Amino acid sequence: MAAAARPPDDGEGAATTNPDAARDEAAVVLTPSAGIPQLGDRELSTLAQIGQHWRNAVADRDAWDRALPVDPHLHPLIDKTPQGRRRRFADVAFRLEPKEESKPNKKGDDQGDVEATEDATADESPPRQALNRLRRVLVGAPLRSTAVTEERMRKLVALPVLSSDALSSVAYGPEAMLAVLVLGGSGALGLSLPIAGVIVLLMFAVGLSYRQTIRAYPRGGGSYIVASGELGEVPGLLAAAGLMLDYILTVAVSIAAGVAAITSAIPSTRGDQVVIGLAAIAILLAGNLRGVRQAGAIFAAPTYAFIAAILLLSAVGLIDAAGRGFQALPHPPVHATEGLGVLLVLRAFASGSTAMTGIEAISDGIPAFKRVEWRNARTTLTWMVGLLIVMFIGTMLLAVLDGVVPNGQQTVLSQLASKHFGSGPLYIFTQASTAAILLLAANTAYSDFPRLLFFLARDFHAPRLFLRMGDRLSFSNGIIALTVAASALYVAFNGETDALIPLFAVGVFLAFTLSQSGMIRHWLVRREPGWRHSLLFNGIGAVLSAIVLMVTSVTKFVEGAWIVVILVPLLVILFLRIRVHYDRVGEAIRLHRLPFNEDCQPVLPRAVGPPPGLTPAAGRVEISAAAPRHAGEEEEESPDAIAHLIVAPLVSLDLASLRTLAYGASLGQPLLAVHLATDETDAERFRRYWSTWGDYVPLQIIHSPYRSLIVPLARYIEALKEQRPDLTITVVLPELVVKRAWHRLLHNQVAPRLRRALREQKGVVVATVPFHLPG
Amino acid sequence: MAAAARPPDDGEGAATTNPDAARDEAAVVLTPSAGIPQLGDRELSTLAQIGQHWRNAVADRDAWDRALPVDPHLHPLIDKTPQGRRRRFADVAFRLEPKEESKPNKKGDDQGDVEATEDATADESPPRQALNRLRRVLVGAPLRSTAVTEERMRKLVALPVLSSDALSSVAYGPEAMLAVLVLGGSGALGLSLPIAGVIVLLMFAVGLSYRQTIRAYPRGGGSYIVASGELGEVPGLLAAAGLMLDYILTVAVSIAAGVAAITSAIPSTRGDQVVIGLAAIAILLAGNLRGVRQAGAIFAAPTYAFIAAILLLSAVGLIDAAGRGFQALPHPPVHATEGLGVLLVLRAFASGSTAMTGIEAISDGIPAFKRVEWRNARTTLTWMVGLLIVMFIGTMLLAVLDGVVPNGQQTVLSQLASKHFGSGPLYIFTQASTAAILLLAANTAYSDFPRLLFFLARDFHAPRLFLRMGDRLSFSNGIIALTVAASALYVAFNGETDALIPLFAVGVFLAFTLSQSGMIRHWLVRREPGWRHSLLFNGIGAVLSAIVLMVTSVTKFVEGAWIVVILVPLLVILFLRIRVHYDRVGEAIRLHRLPFNEDCQPVLPRAVGPPPGLTPAAGRVEISAAAPRHAGEEEEESPDAIAHLIVAPLVSLDLASLRTLAYGASLGQPLLAVHLATDETDAERFRRYWSTWGDYVPLQIIHSPYRSLIVPLARYIEALKEQRPDLTITVVLPELVVKRAWHRLLHNQVAPRLRRALREQKGVVVATVPFHLPG
Repeated sequence: MAAAARPPDDGEGAATTNPDAARDEAAVVLTPSAGIPQLGDRELSTLAQIGQHWRNAVADRDAWDRALPVDPHLHPLIDKTPQGRRRRFADVAFRLEPKEESKPNKKGDDQGDVEATEDATADESPPRQALNRLRRVLVGAPLRSTAVTEERMRKLVALPVLSSDALSSVAYGPEAMLAVLVLGGSGALGLSLPIAGVIVLLMFAVGLSYRQTIRAYPRGGGSYIVASGELGEVPGLLAAAGLMLDYILTVAVSIAAGVAAITSAIPSTRGDQVVIGLAAIAILLAGNLRGVRQAGAIFAAPTYAFIAAILLLSAVGLIDAAGRGFQALPHPPVHATEGLGVLLVLRAFASGSTAMTGIEAISDGIPAFKRVEWRNARTTLTWMVGLLIVMFIGTMLLAVLDGVVPNGQQTVLSQLASKHFGSGPLYIFTQASTAAILLLAANTAYSDFPRLLFFLARDFHAPRLFLRMGDRLSFSNGIIALTVAASALYVAFNGETDALIPLFAVGVFLAFTLSQSGMIRHWLVRREPGWRHSLLFNGIGAVLSAIVLMVTSVTKFVEGAWIVVILVPLLVILFLRIRVHYDRVGEAIRLHRLPFNEDCQPVLPRAVGPPPGLTPAAGRVEISAAAPRHAGEEEEESPDAIAHLIVAPLVSLDLASLRTLAYGASLGQPLLAVHLATDETDAERFRRYWSTWGDYVPLQIIHSPYRSLIVPLARYIEALKEQRPDLTITVVLPELVVKRAWHRLLHNQVAPRLRRALREQKGVVVATVPFHLPG
Repeated sequence: MAAAARPPDDGEGAATTNPDAARDEAAVVLTPSAGIPQLGDRELSTLAQIGQHWRNAVADRDAWDRALPVDPHLHPLIDKTPQGRRRRFADVAFRLEPKEESKPNKKGDDQGDVEATEDATADESPPRQALNRLRRVLVGAPLRSTAVTEERMRKLVALPVLSSDALSSVAYGPEAMLAVLVLGGSGALGLSLPIAGVIVLLMFAVGLSYRQTIRAYPRGGGSYIVASGELGEVPGLLAAAGLMLDYILTVAVSIAAGVAAITSAIPSTRGDQVVIGLAAIAILLAGNLRGVRQAGAIFAAPTYAFIAAILLLSAVGLIDAAGRGFQALPHPPVHATEGLGVLLVLRAFASGSTAMTGIEAISDGIPAFKRVEWRNARTTLTWMVGLLIVMFIGTMLLAVLDGVVPNGQQTVLSQLASKHFGSGPLYIFTQASTAAILLLAANTAYSDFPRLLFFLARDFHAPRLFLRMGDRLSFSNGIIALTVAASALYVAFNGETDALIPLFAVGVFLAFTLSQSGMIRHWLVRREPGWRHSLLFNGIGAVLSAIVLMVTSVTKFVEGAWIVVILVPLLVILFLRIRVHYDRVGEAIRLHRLPFNEDCQPVLPRAVGPPPGLTPAAGRVEISAAAPRHAGEEEEESPDAIAHLIVAPLVSLDLASLRTLAYGASLGQPLLAVHLATDETDAERFRRYWSTWGDYVPLQIIHSPYRSLIVPLARYIEALKEQRPDLTITVVLPELVVKRAWHRLLHNQVAPRLRRALREQKGVVVATVPFHLPG
């Protein structure tokens, strides 16, 4: 089945009335059939014309129906009521579609469609059975397409669902900043509050900026959609590449930080962070393949618990500090390993700004809000940014007041909590809710990453397989891709948050910058009411994001940001090349091959005769004179344009070979048997067998003195094809089907090798005639 | 192409006149067509009867010839003289076989066979081209089958060729023995000469024993052939398994010892033995793939040089020793780490007996001698054993007289040579000839191992691919298998001779024991003149070999012999299971399916109607009434027994799909188009396109609400098949052929997946209609 074609709205003749509306609509619709190409008006008319060619070939349409040796509706089998236990799989695997009474039977004989039931979806071949059962247990039974539902969320539910990523950043952002400053010694640590102040300003500005995006893209404005819609293909792809890396890093960093919360609380688990982290990723994988909807309840508890824990911790800490007159406690002696310079401050700022990751989630998720969506989304964004700022400030203040600095053993949050809560239930609550919200934050990437890939695939920038909804209506291919990438990254960096942080901010701020810049263009072009106001906020957001992007890329370059700096353009090139390929494919298989003359009648490709120099031989062989109408090479769209030759290569005359020969002969087309002989004895022997059998079919013996079989056979078929390029040559091959995989090693795999050797050759069909072996 | 069938002489009706003669003949014939099964008389008569069925189907044989749209002899293309540079590949890829003038043209129109020239053997698809060129450089141009020549050797040439393996054992056997004794301290070292004496006796006995084998098997008597011929299948396979491991170890040990000779002489190379050894194995691989014939000259020089070096060393050493009245010099102080007990002595004996490996080579290689082969072989064997004994005694005596013991830095031979020759040219000559003969010894395994696999494959105990002669007439698959196994072993044991030695002797003596035991039975059964004499020698050989086998297996068990003790039975089980599989396959595809009635007319399988309960549906579909004669499942050997249904699954209507539909329709058989719809929109849309096109072919829409496509399609085809099990269903699929490998990731690989899903289903042919994409 041909898998790819260009989207209809790219077609010259496609009748899309309002491209903008269509794009807006398409931007958020995730349907199971999104991957199936549609035909435009021009293509439909070409289709009708191709059909007229068929009229010559298909004299009597009803004859086809009468000739059909089976009932395609499976009627006799389906109609039987299954008695007791399952009898034959066809009883349960298919059912007739209920007929719509309103629709009259066009021909009076249309018995309707067949539906594959759940039983028809499981591959029950023995090696797969156990695998299928395991999958059922882990992932659950498949869901029908109609089970796609859109959950609408109240603001109080949407807040935890969409903000777990952003709020959880408080667990690692402040720590990442302090970890850099500590390198500069005590003097540097004193700069932590000013830097935190700048980051808070940045949060405020970006938050305001996204408020504008929400208003402008009320159906969902992810960075890829905004940047590609407003700035064009390449900026959109840059944003997409940044976001893809961001999502992968979100999983890796959140899991690393979450595991750190656990190992801080339970010292005996220190050193096992890779195993624990991979287990957590495996749980996320299984849960997301199962298609855990973002059920409010699951998300609400840990997020609110984390908010409560941090706010309580800040309050208790500030009260404690108030008790000593807000006197900062001395921090443990730190050994300055670097001079305190601008570079160190900028690096600390870059690390701290990872506390802002995830802030864009609400503008991606607008359609999930109750009406009026954009208004509710804006309010929720305001709440979220407010909470983020409060929690960030609280944590930073406390760290400074308590003189806490990062150490390799416990996270900063854990140190603070144990300082103020002791080791009792409140401490455990803090650590547990931290770990839980970080797991949820990683989970957000599991819905965002596959959705981004879906959009990319829909726009022909990613393989079509990311369009496919899995058994459970989740985009399983994207989920698996994210899991593989995040696990690899996590293992490569040994599950250490500090090592991952330098990679993190670049992708995020690239996407922020492009998205805000897109908004600038949006307001400049549209000039909707209040556009100056919005333009200002988006302008500030864009400029600040761009500054952070540059600071991060440069200062963190050697520490790891170079990976992102290299990968982003490589990904964009890949996206573009994928698009080029799909465009070419779409052009090649699109129904547009028949040019039209003035009367709007298709102009047929010129007829071809035998190639020049090919005259009938003197001997018995008469090259059939009837040259077909078409030029031959895979462009025949109607049956009468196809001239056949069946070639049956035979090694020996056993049952499998004779069955294949019989198959070839029974098709009623010209048939040529070919035997490749490795030596003279073999050739003589085969000739003798052939005449014993009766010589019913023309036989050509090809001597292969170099003992090679596949390539000379492929070459011979090519030589036949060269005589008559218009021929469609069907090579029929027996295929011994063995029961066990290791038995395959005992047989020459001629069919796949010949198929590979003939792959480059146009108009050669390879048909494998199976012969099932016992044991 | 069906690849395997049982040998004709196993057939019930096969007319082999003299099985013994045939076996003797077959035992040594290595032909390119050995893998192609032959038909016995009974099968030939079945073939003729199957042909008579065809007579019904093929009304006019000449019509087939007339219908052929091409000239199978490629006449018009071939006859053109290539002008200057190559024009089209068909000009050079094929040529007409020269017609034998004596053979009259049966029909007056037989234009003879076509021969694939060398140009037709190279796969010139772009990705392969570079690979092919590299192969040409490394391995050389392919050789014609007719280039197989049998070189006959004079005794003085045969001696170095066939004895390099045995004589080179002197380089590691004595050292291996001393390395064990040194563990027992000075007292143990005193036992070295008595143990060496026992080994010399053993050499003498085994040599005498093989003299008998040569007389009894004048056409070549390898252990596998003797043991399987005289004792039966399992003993033969035991010998084969032992020998296979022996050959692998010969390569590993000889290379290890040869590299040790080099590192002894050039201290700076110590520690690099793995790299040097792998390079040596790579040279052997390339040389053997090239098919270096065992040219006397190549072998003669190093072997005679080594013999000369050892004899000279012994002579000089003994003269030196004579100078001091044969007073043994004190050996360096050795620290006894084990008590001197029977076990230590036996282990030393077992290690020392590796000096006998390779002694069987001459009895394997009898056909390579000039006439009278067996007599010349016997004389050569006597020479070889004599030389082996002299060189072994010389080395051992010298080691004791000079007080040399193994150390980790230099081999014993190197120590002896440097003691007596200094570091001058004689020393270098000794070391170089040692390394050279050890490389040659490893090379012997490269001709023996593939030959053994050839015999095993011929007897259906190994995959058929080991029957295939490569481009250069060498058994490339066996050569590659040996290289992989020996390299793995060499690397696993870090290229250390000492570590490999314990594995070595078991396989050798297992093969010796079985071969000599086979000879005992031979003499007892045949009682040819002088049989008592031969029986005595073989008896002594068998008993001694069996004793060594037991001693080796037990005493070396923990040091590594357990690997061999476990692998040998596993290999035998594998050989037997492979045979069982091939037997079943042979039975299944053999031409024996038609039972005969009293008049010697075939009884046809019962005709089948539609399965019970399958009555024509009430609607438009009429199940075609004509039930075929045959029972349906892949047993139709004549065209009229095959009833067709073509199924064309379509995702969308693009050029590739329409081309596939046209292909299916043009075959002139009943055709059913199938569309799998993932949702209602998709189904409606496809139906609309279908009627736009013209609805020329019956269409069945299958809803797949679980979005899975492959499995429901496979299930649906199975359900059709269940309605009419006698149908042969051909599934035609478009296949988009991309130019670059990575583009394949961008398209759903429906064809291979569907082929896999349908593999278990009998009577379903999958045909892929290619559609070539640009770029």
